[in-house]
Amino acid sequence: MKDAPTTPIPTFDDVVAAHERIAPYIHRTPVLTSSYFNELTGAELFFKCENFQKAGAFKVRGACNAVFGLSDEQAEKGVATHSSGNHALSLSYAAGRRGIPCHVVMPRTAPEAKKAAVRGYGGEITECEPSTTSREAVFAEVHARTGADFVHPYNDPRVIAGQATCSRELLDQVEGLDAVIAPIGGGGMVSGCCLTLSTLAPDIEIYAAEPEQADDAFRSFKAGHIIADDAPNTIADGLKVPLKENTWHFVSRYVTDILTASEEEIVDAMKLTWQRMKIVMEPSCAVPLATILKNPEVFRGKRVGVIITGGNVDLDKLPWM
Amino acid sequence: MKDAPTTPIPTFDDVVAAHERIAPYIHRTPVLTSSYFNELTGAELFFKCENFQKAGAFKVRGACNAVFGLSDEQAEKGVATHSSGNHALSLSYAAGRRGIPCHVVMPRTAPEAKKAAVRGYGGEITECEPSTTSREAVFAEVHARTGADFVHPYNDPRVIAGQATCSRELLDQVEGLDAVIAPIGGGGMVSGCCLTLSTLAPDIEIYAAEPEQADDAFRSFKAGHIIADDAPNTIADGLKVPLKENTWHFVSRYVTDILTASEEEIVDAMKLTWQRMKIVMEPSCAVPLATILKNPEVFRGKRVGVIITGGNVDLDKLPWM
Repeated sequence: MKDAPTTPIPTFDDVVAAHERIAPYIHRTPVLTSSYFNELTGAELFFKCENFQKAGAFKVRGACNAVFGLSDEQAEKGVATHSSGNHALSLSYAAGRRGIPCHVVMPRTAPEAKKAAVRGYGGEITECEPSTTSREAVFAEVHARTGADFVHPYNDPRVIAGQATCSRELLDQVEGLDAVIAPIGGGGMVSGCCLTLSTLAPDIEIYAAEPEQADDAFRSFKAGHIIADDAPNTIADGLKVPLKENTWHFVSRYVTDILTASEEEIVDAMKLTWQRMKIVMEPSCAVPLATILKNPEVFRGKRVGVIITGGNVDLDKLPWM
Repeated sequence: MKDAPTTPIPTFDDVVAAHERIAPYIHRTPVLTSSYFNELTGAELFFKCENFQKAGAFKVRGACNAVFGLSDEQAEKGVATHSSGNHALSLSYAAGRRGIPCHVVMPRTAPEAKKAAVRGYGGEITECEPSTTSREAVFAEVHARTGADFVHPYNDPRVIAGQATCSRELLDQVEGLDAVIAPIGGGGMVSGCCLTLSTLAPDIEIYAAEPEQADDAFRSFKAGHIIADDAPNTIADGLKVPLKENTWHFVSRYVTDILTASEEEIVDAMKLTWQRMKIVMEPSCAVPLATILKNPEVFRGKRVGVIITGGNVDLDKLPWM
């Protein structure tokens, strides 16, 4: 079966172990509420603010779990990855904390702020073209040359178990949730939510939110098998990558529905969040709110956890400028 | 004595009463820390985030204390004020919560986002020219016409007692502070810090931070009497107003020092805070951090409370655009 997982599926025991392993290197991020957005949506929204996370995004959870789970012998050669941004930053941060090398293949079109931050954490960047094909080819060369341990941005059980610690915290911070919604690109965060919630609170609905212009997860979900686009174009630059076998395992089994929003709806939701909640967050993080505003009947009257996935934006290139 | 207070000086009992009175209408705002800024400054900084406050700024504390302290008879005619922005917003919010009218005289040059927000809270705006002289003349007409209760943005004992609740919370949230620093314009927030700290923790140093281009409080402090400039020009638009008798009472007695920063230093500190802490804050709020970065020897090794006063910026007119 071509969409079947290629590595062991992480279990909730892996999540508990991950949480203990990464605790010294991450923040337990706050949950914010907004009476303005509650009135606007008719739902009670609880924003889990991973934009305040170390390295500026939830991805540091999975990256730390992978890096600090390596044996000393494995760790010596360092870690390597390809990423559109936040995973690169997070893996560089994690490797830096352990004192090992980190090799990163990044699209040359990635925001300058992200490249500078990767280098700031000690990551070594090799640039590729902004397509999945180019990224994978350049990465193969780097990987072969360095012998570093490959930490995939999302299709890695260690990463999924790490991301799952976010929804585990959220459950601890907010009682009586009816639903959780997170943006979906490769599906690492959503898979983490599936893993935690299917174990601890299987009645909580799990929604994934995706840009219309990069809706391959939406189409995969409807079709029942993975559909991957090469280089879709959206302002939500963290969400351009396709599902892979390990995330498809979770998304296909546990997600309630995938909702989409247009570029304009995403930018409007992003700007409104900055204005009313006074937080800096990425376009990707605005996709869940954009879909809630677009589908109020799905969320009205519910207590909804909304994962704000990261805050690494280039302040010189804001989408409403 | 021309700089002597014109109304009773608020006491710490007034602060305790204010805190109880306003609690249902305000947030107990969080205190954030940043390992990045701690490393950069050599100090331990604790950011009291009033940008997350109701109506987007600390000013809602004083405004609520004034509005909810009115007798029913006084309240009927509503409240009135002049303000460069956040006090207008806050008084409109407070009046709206009590269901009474709010008349606001505002410079026609104030950010559109603030004017729209005042109207959104139900405030009625009369515009004036961007000078203290014009503002006071237009206000006198509005005040006479409506008979509303005048709530001065800072030279009012009810407002000072309200603002003092912010530093009272901060003391409760962070142990062992060595210093507190806040921006200074008219001196309402700084007077509130003086009132709280001189009562509860008189050993804590109190610093005020001011734009070089609107340094009338700095010059007043050095001269020993109030110096007022008409319409100074700075990006920190909340800090253009001069000290008045009631705030001078506190500033002249309890402030350790007033530090200043250039426009460029303020914008740099503002952008850096957005980038690293992922919070939206006003230029005024960046003045304390700008002065800390400029005077590291004053703060090194100290635990410093930094008041982030508000987050109401016009996202279409950011100073680095």
